[in-house]
Amino acid sequence: MASRRTIVFENKPVITGSYSIVGPKEGKGNFASYFDYIMNDDSFGEKTYEKAEKKMLEHAINGAVADAKIQPEEVSLLLSGDLLNQIISSSYAARNFDVGFLGLFGACSTMAEGLAIGSAMVDSGYFDHVVCATGSHFSTAERQFRFPLELGNQRPPTSQWTVTGAGACVLSKQGSGPRVAMATFGKVIDYAVVDVNDMGAAMAPAAMDTMLTHFRETNSSPDDYDLIVTGDLGKLGSEILIDLMEMSGIKLGLNYNDCGQMYFTRNQNTLSGGSGCGCSATVLNSYIISKLRKGELQRVLFMPTGALMSTTASQQGETIPGVCHAIVLESDVKPKGGGVQSQDIKKTTSASKGGSKIQKRKGG
Amino acid sequence: MASRRTIVFENKPVITGSYSIVGPKEGKGNFASYFDYIMNDDSFGEKTYEKAEKKMLEHAINGAVADAKIQPEEVSLLLSGDLLNQIISSSYAARNFDVGFLGLFGACSTMAEGLAIGSAMVDSGYFDHVVCATGSHFSTAERQFRFPLELGNQRPPTSQWTVTGAGACVLSKQGSGPRVAMATFGKVIDYAVVDVNDMGAAMAPAAMDTMLTHFRETNSSPDDYDLIVTGDLGKLGSEILIDLMEMSGIKLGLNYNDCGQMYFTRNQNTLSGGSGCGCSATVLNSYIISKLRKGELQRVLFMPTGALMSTTASQQGETIPGVCHAIVLESDVKPKGGGVQSQDIKKTTSASKGGSKIQKRKGG
Repeated sequence: MASRRTIVFENKPVITGSYSIVGPKEGKGNFASYFDYIMNDDSFGEKTYEKAEKKMLEHAINGAVADAKIQPEEVSLLLSGDLLNQIISSSYAARNFDVGFLGLFGACSTMAEGLAIGSAMVDSGYFDHVVCATGSHFSTAERQFRFPLELGNQRPPTSQWTVTGAGACVLSKQGSGPRVAMATFGKVIDYAVVDVNDMGAAMAPAAMDTMLTHFRETNSSPDDYDLIVTGDLGKLGSEILIDLMEMSGIKLGLNYNDCGQMYFTRNQNTLSGGSGCGCSATVLNSYIISKLRKGELQRVLFMPTGALMSTTASQQGETIPGVCHAIVLESDVKPKGGGVQSQDIKKTTSASKGGSKIQKRKGG
Repeated sequence: MASRRTIVFENKPVITGSYSIVGPKEGKGNFASYFDYIMNDDSFGEKTYEKAEKKMLEHAINGAVADAKIQPEEVSLLLSGDLLNQIISSSYAARNFDVGFLGLFGACSTMAEGLAIGSAMVDSGYFDHVVCATGSHFSTAERQFRFPLELGNQRPPTSQWTVTGAGACVLSKQGSGPRVAMATFGKVIDYAVVDVNDMGAAMAPAAMDTMLTHFRETNSSPDDYDLIVTGDLGKLGSEILIDLMEMSGIKLGLNYNDCGQMYFTRNQNTLSGGSGCGCSATVLNSYIISKLRKGELQRVLFMPTGALMSTTASQQGETIPGVCHAIVLESDVKPKGGGVQSQDIKKTTSASKGGSKIQKRKGG
């Protein structure tokens, strides 16, 4: 029997600020009305997509700090990572902030890794405010992990679309906003998937392991959550997770969904759905936090998933392991006439399809 | 005035186990007699150097857990990172351990980043045992960051030699051994160095910033430490640091040294000295911990430094930022007739040059 991997935060750090920025395609997806900023152009005025990715991250960090209504000098730490080699978006963005920098690499699970470590730093009383951030860019990810876009490769049905976007939030010791109640650190799990165009299948076993561990260690079940949301398993991966969980004796119901699956509309041609660090990060820092702030979601199990793939490892015949960390988020606002099911997102936002920033998400 | 970046650990987590493994060249260097394991061959029986790097890391993790005299199941978390794209050595090594995985990227500062976060996890009472590990390999680093070894490029005098080696330690809530007393998280600092063969110059400003921050926030001075040791500034970088500190009004004396500068003997042709995550990690987990265990060092300021370089960023005209985290280590054994200066290392170990594992370092 392995040791516990769950932290129960006694002081429940508060998410006092959050911000999301996305590319134009993402801005036409299902969460369009929730994002803080939709770029007109995915180069964001920069000469390279890598520089654009870094700029998005800086923008999101500044946005979250402003949303928290604190001064940048009040922040002690920035916890950030991304998909690029040597997490350059994060480390280069960090140059512009006068804070301690904790570089993370958890692939697309980074938002949760940052939230877990950041919450620990705040919960234990070490720091008053920390910022957690991550992002990704379709064009930087494609050229680093797969093929140059110029090749015009066909995409198989299992492939996912790396979200161009960045999300950031401020975790504070005090204040009002959703609370981080628990975190379960995930193990690295490898089911020997080798296809770089089938990330959902590579990550689903890690999601299952973390979910089972979380339920066991916290003596909870799916019924304890309004929304259980994985990061970017996509359509295929989330079906695999549902099957794996059922084989383990736990039936995931209508309160389960996946950010990658929900992200784009059917006609956006993203095949199995969204992916990338920016996928779960922008959903968290727009839709999920907005719903928690309004009390429309009371208790969320947020589970970003990461495929620890690398071209070097793949070229040496290695398989693709996955990792998934789980974060329990609680609303600080009482529910207004019952909870909301995650499936509502499809109805809620389809009307705003194609609109850009048509609805300010911030509550009072 | 920026926010505090230092944690003072109330419960001072204990380093209950440690382990170091190095390549044959490192095994002929100044720390030869302190390492736990010296490989005969830097491929470690594997087909690629990347696989060898991963295997070293696994070996070090297992060694540290055995040294702590605990069962692997008692460990809750593994905190690890390395220099390779997507930290593949760490994430692939993590597959073999039944623990939560926190992937880190702090380049060569990773040992300190892991110790700081790991100590926070133990100090706050969340977990009983965590493992911090990192490593590097000369041949994987050269081919990823510089040129294929087969090219036989000349090395400029400022260049450093990436250490082939891995180090790991177990941090525990209780037990006997050196204590982690404080941690200061470093900022990302960029003095616009662009030469990938001059890492010391790129990292020295970050070391200065962290050192000044540490002394200011903890109201301490160089005199409070037997040994202040940076990670891998090398000969040139550590001279730059001494100058930068002097310009800031603080004179570093004989109790200051640098792992990279101390690592190899003069005739080993490593130019400015050792570098890589494995440099400070193997010095910590052999020489430093051994001296702390015996009480020959009482109080150490351990400051691994990282150059956040990336070929992608360099190709896009970016400069190389650095980062440095500081860890305060304290002995739990009373001194025997006065402290030891770091300069002793040169005398102490030169006799054992060329020997392999000739002196078991573990105390009683």
